[in-house]
Amino acid sequence: MAKTSLSGFPEWLPSQRLIEQHFLNVLQNTFELHGFSSIETRAVEPLSELTRKGETSKEVYLLSRLQAAPGENEDPRKQLGLHFDLTVPFARYVLEYAGQLTFPFKRYQIQKVWRGERPQEGRFREFIQADIDVVGDGKLPLHYDAELPLIMHEALSALPIPQVLLHVSNRKVAQGFYTTIGVAEESLIEVLRVVDKLDKIGPEAVAQELEENVGLSATQAQLALQMAGITASNGEELEEKLRALLEQAGLEANELLEQGIGELAGVLEVAARRRPGALIADLKIARGLDYYTGTVYESELIGHEDLGSICSGGRYDSLASNGKRSFPGVGLSIGVSRLLARVIGAGLVQVSRPVPTAVLVAVTDEASRPVSEAVADKLRARGICADVAPTAAKFGKQIKFADKRGIPFVWFPAGVDEAGANGADSVKDIRSGEQVEADAATWQCPEQDLRVQVVPTQA
Amino acid sequence: MAKTSLSGFPEWLPSQRLIEQHFLNVLQNTFELHGFSSIETRAVEPLSELTRKGETSKEVYLLSRLQAAPGENEDPRKQLGLHFDLTVPFARYVLEYAGQLTFPFKRYQIQKVWRGERPQEGRFREFIQADIDVVGDGKLPLHYDAELPLIMHEALSALPIPQVLLHVSNRKVAQGFYTTIGVAEESLIEVLRVVDKLDKIGPEAVAQELEENVGLSATQAQLALQMAGITASNGEELEEKLRALLEQAGLEANELLEQGIGELAGVLEVAARRRPGALIADLKIARGLDYYTGTVYESELIGHEDLGSICSGGRYDSLASNGKRSFPGVGLSIGVSRLLARVIGAGLVQVSRPVPTAVLVAVTDEASRPVSEAVADKLRARGICADVAPTAAKFGKQIKFADKRGIPFVWFPAGVDEAGANGADSVKDIRSGEQVEADAATWQCPEQDLRVQVVPTQA
Repeated sequence: MAKTSLSGFPEWLPSQRLIEQHFLNVLQNTFELHGFSSIETRAVEPLSELTRKGETSKEVYLLSRLQAAPGENEDPRKQLGLHFDLTVPFARYVLEYAGQLTFPFKRYQIQKVWRGERPQEGRFREFIQADIDVVGDGKLPLHYDAELPLIMHEALSALPIPQVLLHVSNRKVAQGFYTTIGVAEESLIEVLRVVDKLDKIGPEAVAQELEENVGLSATQAQLALQMAGITASNGEELEEKLRALLEQAGLEANELLEQGIGELAGVLEVAARRRPGALIADLKIARGLDYYTGTVYESELIGHEDLGSICSGGRYDSLASNGKRSFPGVGLSIGVSRLLARVIGAGLVQVSRPVPTAVLVAVTDEASRPVSEAVADKLRARGICADVAPTAAKFGKQIKFADKRGIPFVWFPAGVDEAGANGADSVKDIRSGEQVEADAATWQCPEQDLRVQVVPTQA
Repeated sequence: MAKTSLSGFPEWLPSQRLIEQHFLNVLQNTFELHGFSSIETRAVEPLSELTRKGETSKEVYLLSRLQAAPGENEDPRKQLGLHFDLTVPFARYVLEYAGQLTFPFKRYQIQKVWRGERPQEGRFREFIQADIDVVGDGKLPLHYDAELPLIMHEALSALPIPQVLLHVSNRKVAQGFYTTIGVAEESLIEVLRVVDKLDKIGPEAVAQELEENVGLSATQAQLALQMAGITASNGEELEEKLRALLEQAGLEANELLEQGIGELAGVLEVAARRRPGALIADLKIARGLDYYTGTVYESELIGHEDLGSICSGGRYDSLASNGKRSFPGVGLSIGVSRLLARVIGAGLVQVSRPVPTAVLVAVTDEASRPVSEAVADKLRARGICADVAPTAAKFGKQIKFADKRGIPFVWFPAGVDEAGANGADSVKDIRSGEQVEADAATWQCPEQDLRVQVVPTQA
């Protein structure tokens, strides 16, 4: 990323922006192929909407007008903040336009969000999220819990990045298990929250917190840790491991746990059939601080585990509700800027040239600029990005300009000295030096499209 | 536009968003064909940058963190505001990254901007601008003053909107003329500002203000009005009209006026050759409150003059400067949201279907969902946007779902009753009712691409 003067607000140089554009195009294209409609919501929401869940209030940027009317900026009914994710605005959008939408409604949304957090590596104050969600009116079939992560995996696999593995769990499994082993209803959220810190603080510290702060017995804490340690690549393996754990404790799964196992096994089954290797069950995922009620997702960029999850989400029984109607949903969100900052920053991805322009048309003298313009227009009409030299400098200087910008071809209109005696146009590949006669109406540009790709690893 | 709960912050329904996406794609494509690089700048700038010109301070949205450290939100060095245009951030970007850019640097930038103005028709608090600018290091050839408006005209002409006429003038013509007729140097800006209100308050009010508030003589005021009344479609006509006016007053053009006429005539000449009918000289345009120093542009959406200019800009001798280096530029900006709100609001534009999805694959029963998924995946692999029915409802209900969403085709996998006895897949155009046998690996979708087009006028 370009070195920026404002910490936490990343900006790209033009060549890096091409990589970002490619990423966004790939995501958009995949989402549309799967029948998702694009929406954008306004950048601002009423503060009351943004802080409804309470816990994110510290991240919100408030807005005020520099020359507001007296009291205007203090009127809580009028206070606006920048959205910090795309879920809260989407929930509001669904309620606001429910009468004009068709359910189940599948939407994708790629926008910037803002969080007033302390900036650090991989954490920005302004960043792009790419979300897909499907939301139903009253009910939403379970098959979407398997489809959505697979679509995200397809989209991520189409990007020039390391492989992504999606980790999946189900809140009903965790909650069902905890109640099965005797955790009290009112401690459930706290247990989820503590176990969620497993990767960060390690099993000993989690056990200690569960016992000392939440009041679990040593046995319960160990069982919770053992459950959280379970991973499985299919439903059978999942069920086996869970039942073995319960059996060892002399317990039997309660109804919620059975339901959770069923749902999670169903997701694994579809995934194994449609995208083998894309998903793994990983019971330590709880996303305890969010409003998910069933399936939950996180992800791992293979070889970049330190980056944390770059794609997360889950199922919520009530994404939005207006009292009369309730809208369940399931969805995932990619942290695009975090992902880009890593792959660009680590030099893992490259673009075939740093500008859209494929051809620079040379100019002999200002009087003949119209000739060069006409050539460029002919190329453009055929979809070839062309620029005309800024000045009629010596050809060596014009070639140097193309080279400096990273434009691979320089075109010499007919009659120009460089074009040779026969009076035809010619085009030069300035990297190889090869120059051939060419007609702007028919020339096939060998590099019309930009390619964004993984940097080959050194042998 | 969708009826929104927050005045001034427009939001689109999914079908309208398709129109917006089409507009943005067309603009982006045109700009790239002409060799412009995309950049995005962060949404925020230091308040000191935003208010440097003074006059726009009333429009700025200030940011503060909800849980800021004591004093943080009041520290003027740390105060941030949302950008209100893309020119101020671009100037900052050029200075910040000058060492990594190649000049002349051509960039396009399509982003949302925010202004805390009172919302009214065509004036939003959040809206999209699409800018192109070329900026030089120290100097910038004059031919760009002709090229950039023509590229904008090409882009606008590729949109499904009424015809656009660009109006062009040159600040040197106006200022040179005013000094030629004896207006004092220190009154120039004020005269420009008053004459700029011509369309709004009419010639009598302008003359009165020029005489009473700025101190022009009645003769000077009348000459200023006559000059502002001049339009011309080529350089000769322009020169003739201006010289006739001066002759009648017994005056001779000064050097600045001669220079302005030369520059403006040059722009008209190129325009007449490359895009006849795209540009007209219109000397009342001054854009007096901006920082332009030469060519200035406004535009007229034919038949929608009440909308005001939807595309404006100009040349600035010093877009950015750091004391040592100065960066002259020329550019134009389209008010995309204002344009969209008009053409969508007036029903002038339509999209061939309201969703990206072209095909809904029916589902016989949940057990055979994998069959339907496989069909959809085959279609997607060939670039056809496909969705699978949310539930295995009766086929009539599935067709109704497609109809309600605006999906034109419903696909029946082989073996399904609807598909007929021969066991092949079939696809139904639900608008005509026509149903044909089809193979997902080869079927040509008659409406693969969405079309966004002008609504035909009623006969």
